[in-house]
Amino acid sequence: MSPPAQTPDGDPWLLTPGPLSTSSAVKRAMLHDLGSRDQEFIGLTRRIRDGLLQIANGGEAQACIPVQGSGTFAVEAMLGTLLPRSGRLLNLVNGAYGRRVSRICDRLGRQFQELSVPEDQPVDPQQVERALRADTQLGHVHVVYCETTSGILNPLAEIAAVVAGQGRALLVDAMSAFGALPVDVTLPGIQAVAASANKCLEGVPGVAFCIAKKNALGAAAGNSHSLSLDLHDQWQALENNGQWRFTPPVQCLLALDQALQELAREGGPAARLRRYARNCAVLVEGMSALGFTPYLQATAQAPIIVTFLMPADPAFNFESFYTGLNRRGYVIYPGKLTGRDTFRIGCIGHIDETVMRGLLQAVREVLGELGVSVPLIT
Amino acid sequence: MSPPAQTPDGDPWLLTPGPLSTSSAVKRAMLHDLGSRDQEFIGLTRRIRDGLLQIANGGEAQACIPVQGSGTFAVEAMLGTLLPRSGRLLNLVNGAYGRRVSRICDRLGRQFQELSVPEDQPVDPQQVERALRADTQLGHVHVVYCETTSGILNPLAEIAAVVAGQGRALLVDAMSAFGALPVDVTLPGIQAVAASANKCLEGVPGVAFCIAKKNALGAAAGNSHSLSLDLHDQWQALENNGQWRFTPPVQCLLALDQALQELAREGGPAARLRRYARNCAVLVEGMSALGFTPYLQATAQAPIIVTFLMPADPAFNFESFYTGLNRRGYVIYPGKLTGRDTFRIGCIGHIDETVMRGLLQAVREVLGELGVSVPLIT
Repeated sequence: MSPPAQTPDGDPWLLTPGPLSTSSAVKRAMLHDLGSRDQEFIGLTRRIRDGLLQIANGGEAQACIPVQGSGTFAVEAMLGTLLPRSGRLLNLVNGAYGRRVSRICDRLGRQFQELSVPEDQPVDPQQVERALRADTQLGHVHVVYCETTSGILNPLAEIAAVVAGQGRALLVDAMSAFGALPVDVTLPGIQAVAASANKCLEGVPGVAFCIAKKNALGAAAGNSHSLSLDLHDQWQALENNGQWRFTPPVQCLLALDQALQELAREGGPAARLRRYARNCAVLVEGMSALGFTPYLQATAQAPIIVTFLMPADPAFNFESFYTGLNRRGYVIYPGKLTGRDTFRIGCIGHIDETVMRGLLQAVREVLGELGVSVPLIT
Repeated sequence: MSPPAQTPDGDPWLLTPGPLSTSSAVKRAMLHDLGSRDQEFIGLTRRIRDGLLQIANGGEAQACIPVQGSGTFAVEAMLGTLLPRSGRLLNLVNGAYGRRVSRICDRLGRQFQELSVPEDQPVDPQQVERALRADTQLGHVHVVYCETTSGILNPLAEIAAVVAGQGRALLVDAMSAFGALPVDVTLPGIQAVAASANKCLEGVPGVAFCIAKKNALGAAAGNSHSLSLDLHDQWQALENNGQWRFTPPVQCLLALDQALQELAREGGPAARLRRYARNCAVLVEGMSALGFTPYLQATAQAPIIVTFLMPADPAFNFESFYTGLNRRGYVIYPGKLTGRDTFRIGCIGHIDETVMRGLLQAVREVLGELGVSVPLIT
């Protein structure tokens, strides 16, 4: 076996839904300590909030509110702050992250109704419209833009249009989309979008954010079940003196600032999406040639993470496959589907098609090691 | 003016309650990306949880549960998880962090009663005992070990003894104490302790934790108001497969792992406390010689952060003082007391008495620049 592939920082390549492989410069940006109430840090926070807002085509009508913690913290903060305590949510579900929103609502004591579709099907805007017509108490709708459970893309613009048409408000989990797939918070219907630093923005994990309409935020005082996750309070504090209420993850923000500069240098989300789409195409083509079958139809696949069916070949064993790839410097990801045996390979992070080609070579080697003949039987 | 003082990483010295100046090695530990579901990261999480437990003298009866976010997130998680929904808390208050606990309880809908003492007085264990005797519904007590509002030390062991004697459970905010001041979770009465990585542990901000009795955690299923901040769920997930429920702040944990190694190398919390005590003594002695007056009596002062009264000298102006020190490479902190004009200087972080002597020299220079004669009039 040749020496394992590695990133310029000596790590294995992370082909997962995140945390991802980030650039060396993003990580080196963390080699500083800043006082969190000092002008330099206040300026950093301002720059990041403005930069994120701009990526989402936001302007004076929206605000970007950073939240300490993982993406789920931002989703919970968005739901807890923007859903009135007596509100009722239509939750669109075609994967684990949609189901998690129901768990959050359960915990928060917010009423909700699930609209579930199979995990290999995008949410159908017509179904959403029918559900909203049927129950006028449904003031909000939640959708996961790209469900990394399968890697499926939900039709955000079409769903927003339906929600707007019915005079309701859409909350979007754009976690694994923001920074690559188009997000436009000025689309009628969209009230707020939650995402995190460590997906397509290619920062490190530890900070997430929500971009929300200011009029909705202004009306949300006292809604939140939590002090730490109260976006209204966090927004007010940031507007008042530019400071976070509670200690911010300073180094994660330094990394995000650098990551946003690199995104701009690459040409913005559209250029990044092209790189990811190329990664995805190389991956799917190469894996298909080896006999692997993608779980989703190509038209439903977002170029973020690809789910492959577990091969039926009796010589194929996922544990050994995973370990073999790991030893060669590639970290892939187990599946997360209900009732279907799969595994996943991510296309995002500071990687390009040469990394994907290296992975494909490693897959060939590991299959040989396992005694699986190619193309394999699925 | 000579060139500004700076850390080996080219930053100003942070003499604040945190984020603090950390070692270069702690920051360099962040120059890697790890998959959060991979064995290496699972091992890292295990090592950190064990290390934190050991610092608190914990064993088989306790568990350490890390929480994404700032220290307040861990305090809210502790309260939300361990206070039964019908419970009632005695909240001991002598500063802003005690008051914040009341705000959290308000938000969570948990009943509480405040026992407030003046900000320059430690909480009196006898008063706690009387309050607990007077109201048998008070199942839990919350205390802030070191209140960084003033820098005061509350008598943790004595309060724990009283709480134990009354058969109640003590929740401790040990935020700016953990890693230096003694914390012993086996003391009768103590049910849980919350703290964060970026105070006396000298890690970076972005991760906090709670050390709690397993029997209390086991009985706490379903208590939490929040999914993200549910310590019971987080604990169960970590016990099941060693993994975090939601994306962990990988780089912050790499930094904390290094910080824990450095703490052990220094000789543990007792040795670290000696260094901080020396920093504090040099600071107080030097500032007093210049005419500044510490707010607290020496017996109540923890060697963590020192509050000084704002000098009455009309030539003294805090903004200019702060800026002058900043330009010389030292970041100090505004005061936070109710109704008393003060400022604060921290003694913690990767600093020693030479840094303190440098600060004192800078203070002398800035006073000269402001035209304040020394010793100044307070």
